[in-house]
Amino acid sequence: MDSIMRVTVYIKIKPEVLDPQGTAIARALSDLGFAGINKVRQGKIIEIDLDKTNAIKAVSDTESMCERLLANTIIEDYSISIGE
Amino acid sequence: MDSIMRVTVYIKIKPEVLDPQGTAIARALSDLGFAGINKVRQGKIIEIDLDKTNAIKAVSDTESMCERLLANTIIEDYSISIGE
Repeated sequence: MDSIMRVTVYIKIKPEVLDPQGTAIARALSDLGFAGINKVRQGKIIEIDLDKTNAIKAVSDTESMCERLLANTIIEDYSISIGE
Repeated sequence: MDSIMRVTVYIKIKPEVLDPQGTAIARALSDLGFAGINKVRQGKIIEIDLDKTNAIKAVSDTESMCERLLANTIIEDYSISIGE
């Protein structure tokens, strides 16, 4: 039986917050000659392999991981998905 | 008519490559008392809003953006999805 449960966390900067990294990427892409770049936003993906547990506990544990460490909830939003 | 096409790029470190950031996150989570953490891997999400174009051109442009700037293809894999 598969003894690992993978949880994936997507962390994105809140829409109303400036994203200097995204702005720098957009400028660099335009400088390389890519046309039609309107906006670029950069975020993080964090894949966590947990000991097998039930999905509800995995999500609630991961939420507290986000609140306590993984996301800066003042400027970032996060979402959690179970499995690949 | 919606004049923007959003392309999302997921960039992950290749499985065979060490991920020091992921290792540091795993240790920090354990230090905070979270049990059952087996492995943590961190990657990037890049959302690009392009002028409306056809999906094939959007994907091929984004692939060359990844090859030329967004991904370090020696140690990273990338995948592209169209839309939200």
